[in-house]
Amino acid sequence: MYSFMNDYSEGAHPQVLDLMIKANLEQNGGYGQDIHSEKAKEYMKKAMEREDADIHFIPGGTQSNLLVIGSFLRPHQCVISADTGHITGHESGAIEATGHKVISVPCKEGKLTPYEIQRALEENAEEYTPQPKMVYISNSTELGSLYSKAELEALHAICKEKDLLLFMDGARLGSALMSEANDLALKDIARLVDVFYIGGTKNGALLGEAIVILRDELKTDFRILMKQRGAMMAKGFVLGIQFEALFQDNLYFDLARHANKMAEKIASSLEALDYTFYEKPVSNQLFITLPNTLLEKLSKEFKYTVQEKLDKDRTVIRLVTSWATTEESVDALIEFFKKNR
Amino acid sequence: MYSFMNDYSEGAHPQVLDLMIKANLEQNGGYGQDIHSEKAKEYMKKAMEREDADIHFIPGGTQSNLLVIGSFLRPHQCVISADTGHITGHESGAIEATGHKVISVPCKEGKLTPYEIQRALEENAEEYTPQPKMVYISNSTELGSLYSKAELEALHAICKEKDLLLFMDGARLGSALMSEANDLALKDIARLVDVFYIGGTKNGALLGEAIVILRDELKTDFRILMKQRGAMMAKGFVLGIQFEALFQDNLYFDLARHANKMAEKIASSLEALDYTFYEKPVSNQLFITLPNTLLEKLSKEFKYTVQEKLDKDRTVIRLVTSWATTEESVDALIEFFKKNR
Amino acid sequence: MYSFMNDYSEGAHPQVLDLMIKANLEQNGGYGQDIHSEKAKEYMKKAMEREDADIHFIPGGTQSNLLVIGSFLRPHQCVISADTGHITGHESGAIEATGHKVISVPCKEGKLTPYEIQRALEENAEEYTPQPKMVYISNSTELGSLYSKAELEALHAICKEKDLLLFMDGARLGSALMSEANDLALKDIARLVDVFYIGGTKNGALLGEAIVILRDELKTDFRILMKQRGAMMAKGFVLGIQFEALFQDNLYFDLARHANKMAEKIASSLEALDYTFYEKPVSNQLFITLPNTLLEKLSKEFKYTVQEKLDKDRTVIRLVTSWATTEESVDALIEFFKKNR
Amino acid sequence: MYSFMNDYSEGAHPQVLDLMIKANLEQNGGYGQDIHSEKAKEYMKKAMEREDADIHFIPGGTQSNLLVIGSFLRPHQCVISADTGHITGHESGAIEATGHKVISVPCKEGKLTPYEIQRALEENAEEYTPQPKMVYISNSTELGSLYSKAELEALHAICKEKDLLLFMDGARLGSALMSEANDLALKDIARLVDVFYIGGTKNGALLGEAIVILRDELKTDFRILMKQRGAMMAKGFVLGIQFEALFQDNLYFDLARHANKMAEKIASSLEALDYTFYEKPVSNQLFITLPNTLLEKLSKEFKYTVQEKLDKDRTVIRLVTSWATTEESVDALIEFFKKNR
Repeated sequence: MYSFMNDYSEGAHPQVLDLMIKANLEQNGGYGQDIHSEKAKEYMKKAMEREDADIHFIPGGTQSNLLVIGSFLRPHQCVISADTGHITGHESGAIEATGHKVISVPCKEGKLTPYEIQRALEENAEEYTPQPKMVYISNSTELGSLYSKAELEALHAICKEKDLLLFMDGARLGSALMSEANDLALKDIARLVDVFYIGGTKNGALLGEAIVILRDELKTDFRILMKQRGAMMAKGFVLGIQFEALFQDNLYFDLARHANKMAEKIASSLEALDYTFYEKPVSNQLFITLPNTLLEKLSKEFKYTVQEKLDKDRTVIRLVTSWATTEESVDALIEFFKKNR
Repeated sequence: MYSFMNDYSEGAHPQVLDLMIKANLEQNGGYGQDIHSEKAKEYMKKAMEREDADIHFIPGGTQSNLLVIGSFLRPHQCVISADTGHITGHESGAIEATGHKVISVPCKEGKLTPYEIQRALEENAEEYTPQPKMVYISNSTELGSLYSKAELEALHAICKEKDLLLFMDGARLGSALMSEANDLALKDIARLVDVFYIGGTKNGALLGEAIVILRDELKTDFRILMKQRGAMMAKGFVLGIQFEALFQDNLYFDLARHANKMAEKIASSLEALDYTFYEKPVSNQLFITLPNTLLEKLSKEFKYTVQEKLDKDRTVIRLVTSWATTEESVDALIEFFKKNR
Repeated sequence: MYSFMNDYSEGAHPQVLDLMIKANLEQNGGYGQDIHSEKAKEYMKKAMEREDADIHFIPGGTQSNLLVIGSFLRPHQCVISADTGHITGHESGAIEATGHKVISVPCKEGKLTPYEIQRALEENAEEYTPQPKMVYISNSTELGSLYSKAELEALHAICKEKDLLLFMDGARLGSALMSEANDLALKDIARLVDVFYIGGTKNGALLGEAIVILRDELKTDFRILMKQRGAMMAKGFVLGIQFEALFQDNLYFDLARHANKMAEKIASSLEALDYTFYEKPVSNQLFITLPNTLLEKLSKEFKYTVQEKLDKDRTVIRLVTSWATTEESVDALIEFFKKNR
Repeated sequence: MYSFMNDYSEGAHPQVLDLMIKANLEQNGGYGQDIHSEKAKEYMKKAMEREDADIHFIPGGTQSNLLVIGSFLRPHQCVISADTGHITGHESGAIEATGHKVISVPCKEGKLTPYEIQRALEENAEEYTPQPKMVYISNSTELGSLYSKAELEALHAICKEKDLLLFMDGARLGSALMSEANDLALKDIARLVDVFYIGGTKNGALLGEAIVILRDELKTDFRILMKQRGAMMAKGFVLGIQFEALFQDNLYFDLARHANKMAEKIASSLEALDYTFYEKPVSNQLFITLPNTLLEKLSKEFKYTVQEKLDKDRTVIRLVTSWATTEESVDALIEFFKKNR
C-alpha cells in the first residue's frame, strides 16, 4: 500500500547514496572536520551568497531546534511560536527541557505576523512575565504554507526593532523555495533571519539538517554547544557527504521541485474534481477535507495522516509528497479520487 | 598518510552499506517503528538471550550517555565515573547540562571497583552533598582495558546493595567482547547491568548506538525521553537497517575481532621490539610510550593521537584499529617501528 | 496614601513578631531541624488531621512552585495550569527553567475543571506531544475565586483516574478557607490533593510558605531537593517560629478572617452603590470595573493594581485586603466611592 | 549546652530586629522596590565606594551561588572552584542543577591561586572538554583562611588575561574583612572581582545575602533572573531593612569584629596551651586537632562540628563564633580546655 503519510519514508536519493558509497572507505577527519563537510559548506555558502555564513550539520530537526534555541537564549528568555509550530506541540517539550518557555500564539495558516509578535511582547512586558527574545517560524510551515518576501521582511523589521532573534526552521525549506507561489530566494532568507536550517532528512538525505548562523555574535562556541547536546557526530562526514551531494549540482532544489510537482498534480486534479482543501495547496503538504465514508475506502488503498476531525462526518487529512514519490502512485491516487467522486 | 587516530574514520562496512542500498527505496515507518528496527532488535535480543530487553537506536554516543543519565536520575541524583570516563572530561559538560553532577573518582586502568564506589558513597553521604545514584563504566574503557566477569559481578553486587543503577557505555563493546583477554558474554552484561549500549559508530555502522534497558522500571516512556532530547530520528530505520546488518549474521562480532587482531599484531610486534606499553594492550586501542625523536618521524608517515606528554623527552600516543584497518597498513606501521628501533 | 495594592505590604503580625523576638537569642539547630519548626509542624498536622503529612518551610511562593513541580516530575512530564495561573504568566518562566512545560488552558474564573483537564489530555496524547502528569491549581485563585468541595472532589477523581498529581498553590489559602462561600476544610484539602502549600507571606508572616506533601512516594529526599534549589535556609527556624506563632492558636485563620471581613465590607458597600464587580467577590481580592474618570480621582487617594483595560473608557482594578488592613482605611475607601458615585 | 557549631544558631542582632519592629506596620513597595532597600543599597555603595554597583538582596547563600553562576554563564561554560569550595561538595549539586559543571581543583588552605587556574585551563582546552569561564572563591574560605590583597590582585590579573569572570562568595565576608590578618578593603574587592556577595545570615541578619554586581554587562535583567529562580521575595523589604540596619552605622563590621575577637581569644588561649590548629586561625572559624578521648568529654559540655577524622586517635573539629557568641561561653570553653590539658 503506497504511503503519502510523510516525506521521510524512503532512504536517500541515489546520487546522495552514490557519493556515500564512493567515499565509504576514505579516511576522513572526525567531528565534522573533513573535506566533504568543507565542500558542502562552500557549495551552500555560494547558494546563499554568504561567505560569512557559519554552517553546521546536525542529525535531526528536533535536535536542531533545541540546540539553536537553547544556545542563543539567556536562561530567562523565551521564544515566540505559532500555536501550530513544531516546537509547540510536536517535540515532547524539548524546548522547555532546555529551560526556555515557548510562548504559543494563535495565528492563521501556521504563519506569524508582526501583529502577533507585537501582542506577545505587550502581554509579556513585565518583570514577572516570561521574556520574549526570539521568534521561531517554519518555512514551509506545518500547514504547508509559505512566507512571502514581504512577510519575511516585515518579521525581520519588527525583530530588529524589538531586539529579537529571528530563527527559521527549514525542515521543509526545499519545498518552500521551489513552490510556484514562492518569491523568496535563499539569499533573502540569509539576509533576513539570524539563524535557520536547511532540512536534508525530508529532501533527499538519509538524515541531516544544516544549521546556518548569520549573526556574528551567535557563532561563538557553537561547535562546543553541539558537542554538549550530543549533536556533534564522530562521523560528521556522513552528514557532510550528503549535503555535498545535495548542493554540488542543485540536486537539493531539483528534488524539492519534484516533490512539489507531484503535490501540485494531486492538488489540481482534486480541485478540478471539486474536493475541498483545508489549507491552500502551495508546497508538498496537502490538507484535504474528506467525508468519513470516503476516508474508509481511501485507507484501504493509501496511507495518509489524519490531521483533524472536523465534525462527526468530515475529517481533514494530510497527504505529503517527496523527492521519492512516483508519478504512478500519484496517478493511482488521482484515479482513486476520480472514481470515488 | 594512513591514520590510526581513531575507529571512526571510514564509513560503514560494505555489508551494512549493501543492506542500506537494498532497502533504500522501500517505504518504511517513521520514528523507529519499522520492520528493520524490529528485526535488528530481535537479533540483538537473541544475542543477549533476553527477550525482555528494551532496545532503542540513537545516532551518537554522547547523546546516549546524556539521554540515559538524564532520563533515569531524579534532579538531585548524581553519577559516579572514573576520572578517565568519557562523561567526565570528553563531553563538554553534557551530563551536567542535564542537571546532574558527575562525581569523578581516581582509579587505575580506567576501571572502577567497589572500593572507589564505596569511598564516593562515604564522601557523599550527607544531605548537603551530591547524591550518588548511578555508576557509569565503559567497556572497553577509555584506556582500552576490560572488565572481567568477576569485576562486573562485584560492581553489580555493590550497586544492588547500595541501590545504585549500573550503566555501561559500550561505544567499544565489540572490541571488549572479542578480546582474547575477555571472559564476559553479552548475556552476562545484560544480566549484570541495568542499562548499557552497543556501539555501532565505531564498529561497522555509519552511525548509531543501541541502548539496551534491562531493568523494568526504567523502560517507561523512554521513547518520549528520546524525542525530547532530539534523539529520535524521523528515519529511525536508517539506524535499524544498520544494526540488522550487524547482528543478523554476527557481522558485529567479526568486525570487532578483525580490529582486535590488527591491534594485537601491532602489539606483539612492538613488544618483541621492546617498546613500552603505557597500558596493557588487550583491545583495539594501544597506548605506547615513545621518545619524542621517534614521534617526529612517525608523524611524517602515520596519524595517531597524543594521549599525554609524560616528560620532556617522552610522549604516550594512542593507536586505534578498526574493522576497516588494512593488514598492509599494519605491516607498514610495524616495519616503521622495526626500522626505527 | 493608603495602599490596597496587595497583601504583602506590611511586615509580620505582632504575635508572630513577638515570638521571633522571644526566641531571638536562643541557639537553634540549623536547616529546619529545630524545636520551633517541629512544633509548627505538629500544630499544622493537627489542623489538617494528618499525622503523616510531610511539611517543609520555604521562603517564597515562586520558589515553592518551582520546587514542587521540578521535584516530582520526570524530565518529559508537564503540568496543566489555568491560563490565569501564577506559574503561567507571573513567574518569568520559572517552571520552564526547571525543564517542564506548562500546558496553559483557557478557563473561567481562574478555575480548572475536569473538562479542561480531559481536553488537555486528549490534545497531548501522542508520543511527540508534551506529557501531562500534574495539575496545578490555586486556592483562592489569581482571580479571587474558590474551589468548592465538590469541585475539588471532581479534580481529585480525574487526577486519580488519569494518574495525574494534584498540586494546590495555597499562597492565599487562608483567605480561601475563611471565606463565607467556602465549604472546604483543611483536612479535605489534605485528603484530596497530593501536595499543597500554606502561604505565610500573604497572611501574617514576614515571609514563608509551608509545603505539605501527602502522597508517600513524593516524600523521599525532599530536603535534598530543597537544598539543591537553594530553598533550605541555614536559619530555617526563622520560618519555623513564624508558622508556630500562626498555628499554635489559630492565628492564621483569624488573620485571614479579618482580611476577608475587610474585603466583604468594601464589596457589600460597593454593591449597594451599584458598582460592577468583574469577578464575584468571595475572598480578599476584589476586581471592580470602573470608569477611567473615576480611576484618576481614586489614584490620588489610594493605591490599587490595574488588572485589565476593558475598553477605552473602563478599567478593571484589583483591590486587596490583608490581616493588616485597617478598618479606618476601608471606611475611607468606601466614603470615596460613595462621594464619587 | 552551648553551641560553637556554626554562626547561624541565633536570630538577628537586636539593632536589626529593632528596625524591623519599627518598620513593621509601614506599607512598603513589593519585590525589593522599597525605601529601605534603597537606603541599604546607598549605605553599601558608599562603604565600597562604588556608586555604580548593582545590589540585590537574596534570602540565602546556596541560592546566591546558583543564581550568580546560572545567570552569567552560557550553557556550555563551567566554573572553577577549590575542592573545598562550598559549591563543590556542600550544595547537593545545586550548580550542576543549573546545567554547569564545577571543575574542582585541589588546593591549599581552601584558596585558589593562578597556578591552579592555569592548570585547569590547560586541562580543559579542547572542544570536547568542559569550558571554564568563571572562577569561584570564598572569602573567608570554608577553612577560615583569607585572601590577601596581593593574592586577590593575582587572581584578578589571570581572570582578566584569560577572560574569566571572578566571583567571590562572601557568606563570611564580614569576618574576613575584620580579621587582623586582612589587608583587603571592601573597595578593593569591588575593584577586583566581577560579582560578589555580602553575607547577612551569618553576621547579624535573620537571613539575607547582598549580591553585588560590578561588571556592567552582567547587570542586565538580573531582577528577572532572580524572579525566575524564586529568589525575588514579595516582601523584599524584609531583607532591605536588615541590610539598612547593618550598614547605616557600620554595625555589620562591628558584629564581625566581635565574632573574630571571640575566636581569637579561644585561639590564643589554646595556642598558649599547646593545642594544635589544623588551619591557621585568622577568622571566626577554628579548626583544631584533638585526641578522641578529649573529644568525648568536650561533647558533653559544648557543641561543635566534626571536620575530619585524621586517624584512629585524632579528630579535627570546627568551632565557630559569631556576633552572638557570649564572652562567658568563650571563657567556659577555654576553662574546659585548660582543665583537660
